[in-house]
Amino acid sequence: MSPTAANPHVSHPGSLLSIHDISLEQISSLLALANDLEAMPHRERMGRLDGRKVALLFYESSTRTRTSFELAAKSLGAMTTLVSDKSSSIEKGESLHDTGVTLRALGAEAIILRSNYSGAPEVLARCTGLPVLNAGDGMHEHPSQALLDLRTMLKRLGLSESLTANTLNGVTVAITGDVRHSRVARSNAMLLPRLGARVILCGPPELCPVEALSVTPGVEIERDFEKALSQATVAMMLRIQRERLAGLDIDTGEYIAGYQLNAERLARTAPKVLVMHPGPMVRGLEIDSAVADGPQSAIEEQVTHGLAIRMALLDRALRPETNA
Amino acid sequence: MSPTAANPHVSHPGSLLSIHDISLEQISSLLALANDLEAMPHRERMGRLDGRKVALLFYESSTRTRTSFELAAKSLGAMTTLVSDKSSSIEKGESLHDTGVTLRALGAEAIILRSNYSGAPEVLARCTGLPVLNAGDGMHEHPSQALLDLRTMLKRLGLSESLTANTLNGVTVAITGDVRHSRVARSNAMLLPRLGARVILCGPPELCPVEALSVTPGVEIERDFEKALSQATVAMMLRIQRERLAGLDIDTGEYIAGYQLNAERLARTAPKVLVMHPGPMVRGLEIDSAVADGPQSAIEEQVTHGLAIRMALLDRALRPETNA
Amino acid sequence: MSPTAANPHVSHPGSLLSIHDISLEQISSLLALANDLEAMPHRERMGRLDGRKVALLFYESSTRTRTSFELAAKSLGAMTTLVSDKSSSIEKGESLHDTGVTLRALGAEAIILRSNYSGAPEVLARCTGLPVLNAGDGMHEHPSQALLDLRTMLKRLGLSESLTANTLNGVTVAITGDVRHSRVARSNAMLLPRLGARVILCGPPELCPVEALSVTPGVEIERDFEKALSQATVAMMLRIQRERLAGLDIDTGEYIAGYQLNAERLARTAPKVLVMHPGPMVRGLEIDSAVADGPQSAIEEQVTHGLAIRMALLDRALRPETNA
Repeated sequence: MSPTAANPHVSHPGSLLSIHDISLEQISSLLALANDLEAMPHRERMGRLDGRKVALLFYESSTRTRTSFELAAKSLGAMTTLVSDKSSSIEKGESLHDTGVTLRALGAEAIILRSNYSGAPEVLARCTGLPVLNAGDGMHEHPSQALLDLRTMLKRLGLSESLTANTLNGVTVAITGDVRHSRVARSNAMLLPRLGARVILCGPPELCPVEALSVTPGVEIERDFEKALSQATVAMMLRIQRERLAGLDIDTGEYIAGYQLNAERLARTAPKVLVMHPGPMVRGLEIDSAVADGPQSAIEEQVTHGLAIRMALLDRALRPETNA
Repeated sequence: MSPTAANPHVSHPGSLLSIHDISLEQISSLLALANDLEAMPHRERMGRLDGRKVALLFYESSTRTRTSFELAAKSLGAMTTLVSDKSSSIEKGESLHDTGVTLRALGAEAIILRSNYSGAPEVLARCTGLPVLNAGDGMHEHPSQALLDLRTMLKRLGLSESLTANTLNGVTVAITGDVRHSRVARSNAMLLPRLGARVILCGPPELCPVEALSVTPGVEIERDFEKALSQATVAMMLRIQRERLAGLDIDTGEYIAGYQLNAERLARTAPKVLVMHPGPMVRGLEIDSAVADGPQSAIEEQVTHGLAIRMALLDRALRPETNA
Repeated sequence: MSPTAANPHVSHPGSLLSIHDISLEQISSLLALANDLEAMPHRERMGRLDGRKVALLFYESSTRTRTSFELAAKSLGAMTTLVSDKSSSIEKGESLHDTGVTLRALGAEAIILRSNYSGAPEVLARCTGLPVLNAGDGMHEHPSQALLDLRTMLKRLGLSESLTANTLNGVTVAITGDVRHSRVARSNAMLLPRLGARVILCGPPELCPVEALSVTPGVEIERDFEKALSQATVAMMLRIQRERLAGLDIDTGEYIAGYQLNAERLARTAPKVLVMHPGPMVRGLEIDSAVADGPQSAIEEQVTHGLAIRMALLDRALRPETNA
């Protein structure tokens, strides 16, 4: 499948709306660019987007994603402006279209968008013509998270960053928890099989419905966490919200008994698995601290890879001539 | 009338508290400065206010005005700090006076103020002695908006930016909608007649009371929107809040029937009028999308002119020696 | 007492968690550094922390402390990111530990923390290993405020900034108001006696309980405000919250009669005393405007000294090699 063909509305090639939009070749270039930017002396890096304007449009709270994009932009010398829900004209009934056009008219050259509406980034990209980076839209996608997760796996597993359809052959990724509401799960489940990985979704039916299988052909569901774990190269845990368990009549204690990744279970079932989590973690619920902070965890590295990936995404969006 | 004589309290000549404070000669200089700053290579522009400190004190939400001033300051190399209602000591009962003095003591050299109290900018200017730029105070004024609206008209109508009392002779501006609560309307109605323009205020009595006429001698009221429109060179539409209509027992459908600027009415009544709106627009209420996004609309340009005007205002405030 | 020996958990020497952590010799260096940074041409100063990353983690509202640290960081050329309660992952149940580790993974090299939990800065410093500057924790401490208050006194009283245990011999500081809930009072009461000052705590028992004496040996309590004032070299007034008086069944009028620092009382009781207040002031309650804005007041200067102290704290934290 040609990703761009599937999304005829994507006008600006520097946008990242869906993980479908970007080819393996483009991801390979992006990973190389992330390496280059990370290695660059800071003065040179600060010159990359010197004086360029980046708008951060966050309709949902987010510490890590907002801070990551903001510091990525500033690390490249760009100036940023943050528009968040509470201070925005949305309160006054302004449309996403008009907010986007206003930011463009103010000189913004790229917009980072977080929205609780699935598909909002496409709307924004279409009406502004600017590169738009999807920082999470509803329960739909979180493509930069999938890219940083990929970078984390490749570095930790020692695999080549020149990607092919076989790069992740033999790698099994078990994504466990609230798959249903997770854009992180969706974007990963869309990307990883394209590289040859086997993806297992895991959780009780209320949190991991069979409909989740429709994301990509070849994705599997396994209800038994230990069975999933024992086959996994990577255990990607998802945050569980207590209110959501309550709303679904799932007993928290039973959930923990069945699905928590704790030290005992890890040692017994998957003593070599790589542990990942997009954060924020709810320690003591889906994961315990011994695992989160243990040697198998790549959770903190994921954050650092996120900064590098987002620098690369911004550089690619705003310097298309250099990153052709 | 000498504008400065009317405001004896304005200490710092770089302040812009009311559109009355600034002479046509000063506005002409400001427009020229806006042109210069816009044309300047970005590195030179970033050197204009390099290392200077600008405080943004926003007691009301505002995406476009706050972002515009913030990016204007950053585009000139200034460092900014934002103090907004929710995070401010106002919660702790601190006065505007003390907040202003604190910002000055922290090295702020200019303060942009948005407040729901009419007259707050004068208080702040008086107690700090700093240049204060009024970014909207209550239902009183929004002078930088009047300047950006003027720049928009001059550019679109191809008129000279060396202003005289006759510059807008023959130009009729119809300001339609919630005139009563609009500081944009007030500031425009105060400025435009000084340049020779004819100003027509339009709307039902509840939204456009006869008291609005007291703003400037020569301003007129016309209740019939189509009559106003047919005479207008510029149709400046104001945002309508649904809650306000409801509170005044005005039927939304009737308001739309009488006062909406839509494509049919535009084509029939004013096929050449220049359409403006300060934003945020409520599409489908005071304006329809075909007009807002049509060829007669200067709405997006207004935003860009706002950035240029605010760069010029900041440059003038902080580099009085250069802009004498 | 060796301050560091008392705090075995303080890993990074650039942290400032408690005023106990920093020796008189270190404070002397810090004061000298503040002078140097203030006197430095701005381009040189902007090079001090060029490209370094500072995170501002504010779980409580604070205009003056947040703005002060933010402008201090930016004045040294650092890039900042603000994480405040409303936009943070705390809403999602993330721990301070994980927020800190995330900020470190994003490249933050120092964290400024304001929290309503006493002891939070120590937790953050321990888990991140980064320099942490305590910007106020619960009812515990506000050490940078004590340092800026000290700088204010030394400058105003014309005393040497090379500190010894006798520097403030003969100086009496009366701290009056809501001592019980004041971290400013605590940090000052811990620091000043180390320099030889006499400290008098003053207020009604509900606001100034005898337990406050346990902070440092040698601190005294005096219930009669005028007796305290008549002995004072420095009158440090604390903010009074009306709700708190109401909650304690203290009549506001009686409080004012007994404890307000007003012009009449000042002239009669302490015509030469130096007046200080950490802000925000509630004018008309603990202090009147004639005193706050009068010649004996150093209140605005305190803010400026705060900027200098915080620049020095950041410079010390991030350039340990230069400030050894």
